[in-house]
Amino acid sequence: MNDTFPYLPLGPLSAEPDGNRRFRVWAPLPKSLDLVLLTDDDQTLHRMQPEGNGYLISEPVAAPAGTRYGFYLNGKRDKLYPDPASRYQPSGVHGESEVIDLPPVADEDWSGKPLHEAVIYELHVGTFTEAGTFAAAEERLDYLRDLGVTMLEIMPLNQTSGERNWGYDGVLPSALFQAYGRPEDFHRFIRAAHERGIAVIVDVIYNHLGPEGNYLPSFFPVFTEKHHTPWGAAINFDDAHADGVRNYWLENVRLWLETYGADGLRIDAVHAIKDYSANHFLEEVSALADRIGKAQGRTIVTIAECDLNAPRYLQSRKRGGYGMSGQWVDEFHHAMHALLTGEVRGYYEDFGEVEQLARALKDGYVYTGQYSPHRKRNFGRKPGPGITPAQMVVFLQNHDQVGNRMEGDRLLGGIGVDKYLLGAGTYLLSPFTPLIFMGEEYGEENPFPYFVHHGEEALIKAVREGRAREFAAFQTEGHHVPDPQAEETFRSAKLSWKQDDRILEFYRRALHLRSAAPAFADISVDQSGPLITWSIRGGKYTACGNYGDEALTIEVDADELLLASNGATLENNLLQLPAWGFAAIA
Amino acid sequence: MNDTFPYLPLGPLSAEPDGNRRFRVWAPLPKSLDLVLLTDDDQTLHRMQPEGNGYLISEPVAAPAGTRYGFYLNGKRDKLYPDPASRYQPSGVHGESEVIDLPPVADEDWSGKPLHEAVIYELHVGTFTEAGTFAAAEERLDYLRDLGVTMLEIMPLNQTSGERNWGYDGVLPSALFQAYGRPEDFHRFIRAAHERGIAVIVDVIYNHLGPEGNYLPSFFPVFTEKHHTPWGAAINFDDAHADGVRNYWLENVRLWLETYGADGLRIDAVHAIKDYSANHFLEEVSALADRIGKAQGRTIVTIAECDLNAPRYLQSRKRGGYGMSGQWVDEFHHAMHALLTGEVRGYYEDFGEVEQLARALKDGYVYTGQYSPHRKRNFGRKPGPGITPAQMVVFLQNHDQVGNRMEGDRLLGGIGVDKYLLGAGTYLLSPFTPLIFMGEEYGEENPFPYFVHHGEEALIKAVREGRAREFAAFQTEGHHVPDPQAEETFRSAKLSWKQDDRILEFYRRALHLRSAAPAFADISVDQSGPLITWSIRGGKYTACGNYGDEALTIEVDADELLLASNGATLENNLLQLPAWGFAAIA
Repeated sequence: MNDTFPYLPLGPLSAEPDGNRRFRVWAPLPKSLDLVLLTDDDQTLHRMQPEGNGYLISEPVAAPAGTRYGFYLNGKRDKLYPDPASRYQPSGVHGESEVIDLPPVADEDWSGKPLHEAVIYELHVGTFTEAGTFAAAEERLDYLRDLGVTMLEIMPLNQTSGERNWGYDGVLPSALFQAYGRPEDFHRFIRAAHERGIAVIVDVIYNHLGPEGNYLPSFFPVFTEKHHTPWGAAINFDDAHADGVRNYWLENVRLWLETYGADGLRIDAVHAIKDYSANHFLEEVSALADRIGKAQGRTIVTIAECDLNAPRYLQSRKRGGYGMSGQWVDEFHHAMHALLTGEVRGYYEDFGEVEQLARALKDGYVYTGQYSPHRKRNFGRKPGPGITPAQMVVFLQNHDQVGNRMEGDRLLGGIGVDKYLLGAGTYLLSPFTPLIFMGEEYGEENPFPYFVHHGEEALIKAVREGRAREFAAFQTEGHHVPDPQAEETFRSAKLSWKQDDRILEFYRRALHLRSAAPAFADISVDQSGPLITWSIRGGKYTACGNYGDEALTIEVDADELLLASNGATLENNLLQLPAWGFAAIA
Repeated sequence: MNDTFPYLPLGPLSAEPDGNRRFRVWAPLPKSLDLVLLTDDDQTLHRMQPEGNGYLISEPVAAPAGTRYGFYLNGKRDKLYPDPASRYQPSGVHGESEVIDLPPVADEDWSGKPLHEAVIYELHVGTFTEAGTFAAAEERLDYLRDLGVTMLEIMPLNQTSGERNWGYDGVLPSALFQAYGRPEDFHRFIRAAHERGIAVIVDVIYNHLGPEGNYLPSFFPVFTEKHHTPWGAAINFDDAHADGVRNYWLENVRLWLETYGADGLRIDAVHAIKDYSANHFLEEVSALADRIGKAQGRTIVTIAECDLNAPRYLQSRKRGGYGMSGQWVDEFHHAMHALLTGEVRGYYEDFGEVEQLARALKDGYVYTGQYSPHRKRNFGRKPGPGITPAQMVVFLQNHDQVGNRMEGDRLLGGIGVDKYLLGAGTYLLSPFTPLIFMGEEYGEENPFPYFVHHGEEALIKAVREGRAREFAAFQTEGHHVPDPQAEETFRSAKLSWKQDDRILEFYRRALHLRSAAPAFADISVDQSGPLITWSIRGGKYTACGNYGDEALTIEVDADELLLASNGATLENNLLQLPAWGFAAIA
């Protein structure tokens, strides 16, 4: 009877006692593979030997950390290919790989962060600081801890073309983007965060590969034409040779969680992971994450970006689900955004009623089976038993909601401080897990436009034209699509760190309130016209939001005003809630 | 806040008190729709009025049962379209529809058949008898009852082109194929079966539409390019307008189960029902079937043809599954077939070991995660808790396993009676639900080749060439691909009813044994070399199969030989099991 396809480690393996090491590649496609070890002026070749199931392994060779290497395919020496499992590409996607040995993870007293204790902060390393490196980001950790952040979500670190990228054009998922520093820097960054009680999770992309420098198809059938996604042929999770492909990505899971000792993954657009097999790939990811967490005695989280309102992703594996710890809930954002901005274009046509935000506060999802005019179909389903509010990750903005606007303009400029703080209060004191997009907490005014740095002219042209086409209807006098390829566009996205103290103080106090209360079990939401009130965290305080243009006076059973925006006051059990005002009372 | 897309009845609605009735069509695509009522020499037009959500409804009109009708689209009178919800097409797929009123279902004392009491018999109405009609099939019901059959699975009844078809080229799922009789005949056939204690389930196709006479795309977006199947664009279950499409198919579920009072559905190739929404279409089907069964106080079953070894289809909806009552288990067949025939081509390359059949007897599935050489990936998953053996439907042959061979040759001719009875004993006395393919029980020798009766020359040519290409490697002296379009091919598939008494008696006794024992809870399977023994149904008897060329003598703790093939004997606790022999002992 047949065995299972073996899941084996890839790339440069751990050194043997004599200091030598083997290299393994999964490469069922090429006829032959030569490992090429590079020195400054020479190279040595080692023919890789078949191990079965499409795996190839080298003899033990002297290749200490720092060795540069690559592969020749099919006996041809005209092109040196990077290692598909490369951990570092000192000269970018098209260049050679470098052998990286990272120190063991030894975080004393660190046990991770479950989502119900998480306040997530999403950051892009290249624009978070002027230098755009891990070393520079490390200097901001004390600030983040003091703010109340307990979990960093780092936008993708995988190797993309060029020197700047949002990260979603990755082609070598395990290679740390050389523009941000070296693997050792990120390893140290995580330790520094842990020392401050902050977990670090990594944004990973398992649904597509970037358009430039993707050499994986020369090694293995990474794509399948059985399914398609917005990026073309889908990643092969259920067609012939899918297990080698799965092993390839699961090795990436291991790298971040075991080797770097990160605390979890944010998995990009899981609805584009097309898998009809009996074991959905995400079940394998969550099971592996759980195993690693159990073995190391710490909490590891997996957060899916999911556009389906399908509880299956969040449900435990025992209950037939995929076992994700959490998911991004775009609908909570859309419901708030439509109210605060009055925008009704595109998918915002499905939103704009206060009742929808109240519903989002109850269920996380807005659409739980109702007809969506934008999608032109009944959409979604109630989360159902077994799913907790902490599994819903909510936000006032994120890289997508900002960056996918024509000019990448942030919310604050469009709506003003009062509405901004109403939105902030709503999601920071919601029963869900809040995610702050870097700079949002102090009212950053710099935009976060889409930027790339490709090397191929045709691709650059296509990206420029694609953006122009997408926003054709939005271009008006004085407003245009920033050139995604221009360095200036990238530079414009860097945080200014010009802090609006009123906003920063509001965020600090909201997060303090949140952290001071115990994890809540249930929520009670009332909505009447523009007013929504909800009791959270076991009723220790009540939040009130006025999503209308008229001031409201409300009789309340409370005498303490814990947090207020827009001049809300509480006297003699009367809460004066100005237009678009927010208050937390007890 | 939005409502849910409404699921409404389609076609000619029930008559109102004055005898008139309205017609409803879901047709979001055409600009206008006219209901056309036909008389022998005239026609009257009634403009259909929008009801919202793409539904259109007529004024009440005089249209008693028997009225012929159709629709003009977009004000054009050059083509009369059949009703997408047509129940009958007296002159075929391209012609007008007929208003059908069926009598209410009143089956006294009939409560349906759960799968653990089912012995299924698959029949194709057109070839089951010389006349090829329901009326003729009805005359065989006593024979089937006496054989031990408790459930008929009728190959698809939907309207296809021409006068003969396997049924999988249907284009009007609710129209009863005119070659078999009228709807009233099938309604009566079900009653006649119920009177004999036999349930009737219908083979339905929700994953594709036939190549000729499909006018549905003129009415609504029945396909989506989001997903593809072997037949092209997938049926639209999760794209814009999917709910109207779902309602259209769910109306078909209601027709068979409520209006005809059938006992269940066998759902064709569910792995080709592509649905990424939060509510999989099959969950809606099983939930609807359960509601109908509950309302009418009878058992209704849903059996999926599924090629995924994915327990999700069988798991209850509460446990996150799709709630199918059962599924066809091709792998049980393949494991037996490869042993009995020695065939190793195509998907049989994954089979051929006795251990695999033993595994199938334990789990239903053979591949529960192991590497499949044919699929080139790890395949399947253990059924897991909550799934019962009766949910697995197994067979020695079925229309596909016979008909998808070049000449449609049945198993018996290839392997001889001894091996045939070994296979029969194995699956009939397995813990699973057996399915007999018509004629198999008495050793029918006529083939069951693939046949069609299209009207379009290009299509006929394409089908002929497709078959020739598929079997190019199999054509040898004296063996060729029967012409699928030829009437002779269809006629050659009709049962001869020439009965081999030895085979028929074996089937009768095996089914008698099966029915005499209580439903079993667990199975114990032992395998050693070519011998498999298993205790079934609470250990009331033990089955023994010798899947090898050598006779075996086995010491057993039994003194009664209940069923034997190939001259097996039991004396003094010694079971003599000849090569390829089968015995059931107690």
